[in-house]
Amino acid sequence: VIKIAIVGFGTVGESVARILTNDPREQLSLSMIFNRNVQRKKVDWISSDVVWTEDFEVVLESDVDVIVELVGGMHPAADWLEAGLAAGKAVVTANKQVIAEHGSELITRSVDVGRPLLFEAAVAGGIPIVRGLNAGLAGDSIIHILGLLNGTCNYILTRMAVAKIAFETALKEAQQKGFAEADPTADVDGGDAGAKLSILTAIGLGCPVSVGDIPMDSIRPVEYVDFSYADRLGSTIRQVARAKVVEDKKDAVCASVGPMLVPQDSELARTQGSENIVVVTGNRGGRTAFSGHGAGGDPTAVAVVSDLMEIAMVGQVRTAWPTERAQGNVQVDYDAKHYLRFVVVDAPGILAKIAAVLSRYEINVDSILQEPGWSKSELPFVVTLEHCNTSSVRAALSEINGLGFHAKKPLWLPILDRGES
Amino acid sequence: VIKIAIVGFGTVGESVARILTNDPREQLSLSMIFNRNVQRKKVDWISSDVVWTEDFEVVLESDVDVIVELVGGMHPAADWLEAGLAAGKAVVTANKQVIAEHGSELITRSVDVGRPLLFEAAVAGGIPIVRGLNAGLAGDSIIHILGLLNGTCNYILTRMAVAKIAFETALKEAQQKGFAEADPTADVDGGDAGAKLSILTAIGLGCPVSVGDIPMDSIRPVEYVDFSYADRLGSTIRQVARAKVVEDKKDAVCASVGPMLVPQDSELARTQGSENIVVVTGNRGGRTAFSGHGAGGDPTAVAVVSDLMEIAMVGQVRTAWPTERAQGNVQVDYDAKHYLRFVVVDAPGILAKIAAVLSRYEINVDSILQEPGWSKSELPFVVTLEHCNTSSVRAALSEINGLGFHAKKPLWLPILDRGES
Repeated sequence: VIKIAIVGFGTVGESVARILTNDPREQLSLSMIFNRNVQRKKVDWISSDVVWTEDFEVVLESDVDVIVELVGGMHPAADWLEAGLAAGKAVVTANKQVIAEHGSELITRSVDVGRPLLFEAAVAGGIPIVRGLNAGLAGDSIIHILGLLNGTCNYILTRMAVAKIAFETALKEAQQKGFAEADPTADVDGGDAGAKLSILTAIGLGCPVSVGDIPMDSIRPVEYVDFSYADRLGSTIRQVARAKVVEDKKDAVCASVGPMLVPQDSELARTQGSENIVVVTGNRGGRTAFSGHGAGGDPTAVAVVSDLMEIAMVGQVRTAWPTERAQGNVQVDYDAKHYLRFVVVDAPGILAKIAAVLSRYEINVDSILQEPGWSKSELPFVVTLEHCNTSSVRAALSEINGLGFHAKKPLWLPILDRGES
Repeated sequence: VIKIAIVGFGTVGESVARILTNDPREQLSLSMIFNRNVQRKKVDWISSDVVWTEDFEVVLESDVDVIVELVGGMHPAADWLEAGLAAGKAVVTANKQVIAEHGSELITRSVDVGRPLLFEAAVAGGIPIVRGLNAGLAGDSIIHILGLLNGTCNYILTRMAVAKIAFETALKEAQQKGFAEADPTADVDGGDAGAKLSILTAIGLGCPVSVGDIPMDSIRPVEYVDFSYADRLGSTIRQVARAKVVEDKKDAVCASVGPMLVPQDSELARTQGSENIVVVTGNRGGRTAFSGHGAGGDPTAVAVVSDLMEIAMVGQVRTAWPTERAQGNVQVDYDAKHYLRFVVVDAPGILAKIAAVLSRYEINVDSILQEPGWSKSELPFVVTLEHCNTSSVRAALSEINGLGFHAKKPLWLPILDRGES
């Protein structure tokens, strides 16, 4: 039997306690709960044997075997994980931020002290993707990871498409339903998905990268009209997190997070609402997909309790985290088809000017779409580009941005290839 | 470093050897290959250090740490697994038949001798579903498992739908392309999926059941016309393997394998060609889906090598197999909507006669579909039924079968509920 301390008694902590109380397992025993101002947290359905404390030192000095860190955020969580390992405790955490930024040190520490540090709940909630990469696909060489890792973005984007509403409206709805926080920055601007992607890149592609090096684009500039044009292109829009090995380079990956056009018949497009999906491609096993509930108290608690069961039954340190590898480089440029949406004050010759810039960068136009019925003073139209490098698009767009006819800043979305999705 | 003997050097064995040779891992060393008439199997890309043998005793008496059993079939594989464990070897197998029939004894034996027995490759090839249930969702209480576990059936059924061809034509095509064996019985009649389902039932629902107790229906009677009618019902047809806990009964599950109507927008319908999918529903974490390549040398070899990595890195016996539980009962009856397809020699009053029988069993008709353009002497039409128990349908159909107007035996397919798929 292992003795467990839950550190942070919020939504997930409460769900973990409920599982340990209502579906008891002979190997697991809840013995302590830590929270600031713990008095107001006390609930009557927890066994009276459980010690409540608001002093983390009490947890460290106790005889608990495992600390379940659910306070979130970087400080003091990172120090507490370190202190827990130093005190000889195993550690289970749902903290993507700490693992993404300090995974290599913490896991090195875990191996040194011989106590496990598990973090299934840090990526994609209830979907066992960390274990899938650590163990289930250990026999393969993974070359590509593609995911919808942020349920808030997926909820907002699917609502915009279905209800034909603006980003702000969908965001408010998500906030009212509890799918988005009051400050949605980390979700909609990509930080949350970026942290998760950097964890998957480390354990899946064997290349740890800094979250800050992953280019991230916000979903905020996406408008309903983009879904309308995407639909004409047989696509929809998703916040895609992806990472790919760079051929012949062990110390680099190509990675990004941001809105992309994805084919309507792809698994990504079919992932609706707040669900998550991770599609992993291996050299040998081909594509394997994992999907389910990426957030929420209960699914995340399932991941935590699964980690606890592993510690109880195996008790050993095992990790696919490449602790021996230095931080890798993130390659920002890649080849893709592209979607450019302009909103202009209509006048003759606009398309010719755009085409002239694109042609100077040797970028081929694939299609031009302009739906009828829009105001001439704020006319949206779309240009899609054949395969070309993002660096050319960036340079061309920066020139086009300088032209005087824009009513809004152009929106640029890479298009995910059918074969890739 | 663990020393490995590959026992059975067919497609999967060769793929395992290729991974160990081309993507070497410091923990794994191929040291022996067993096959009958081993001489004809020798290949030059295998290191000259590797011992080739056609005597299983040589494997048992050697210093190999792990036996990878890939000979398939019940005999002598079951005895060899047992002998391997008795000789103190760890065992990795892709043998669904042996694990489905003898899992409880073999895993008890494995625990007794303290050597692991792993079988990720026995279910759904490269998809890490065994590990997903054993470890990844260990924190949940799984209540429902739904899967497309046979790639041959999925290939045949998707080809029938897309190419508008008969079962026999699609089967021949599958055989020519290597997706079906010369004797397709185990695939199309359900035995293969049934064995896999019984393994998932043991480790996922905690209830070991005998494969022979799982009711199986063949996909052979499905005709192209059924896809045409299914389409009108917003559905398609898949060979579905499913198991569900029976409320308040720890020693029983409801399970079946056979063709069913599934909604076109479900994950099952969208699983095309030879792919596999497993959808697991937990009390806490909700639905989690795992999909990918369920067969083939390389994906299956990835599962085998992942098991080898686990043995190398963890080395311990850990299993969710409920060795302490006696064989459970399989409940055959369940509630569902149903699809009945009749092919009749047309005459007045046929529908009235069918309706009279159904009404006597208190079964409500949901819809009647009859497409124009068919011969009156072999007229297909479809009756769908509202939710009712399979036992009532069975009884009613047996009466209807006795009526004189049939040109072919009626086809009965349960309809998977939208919420369930």
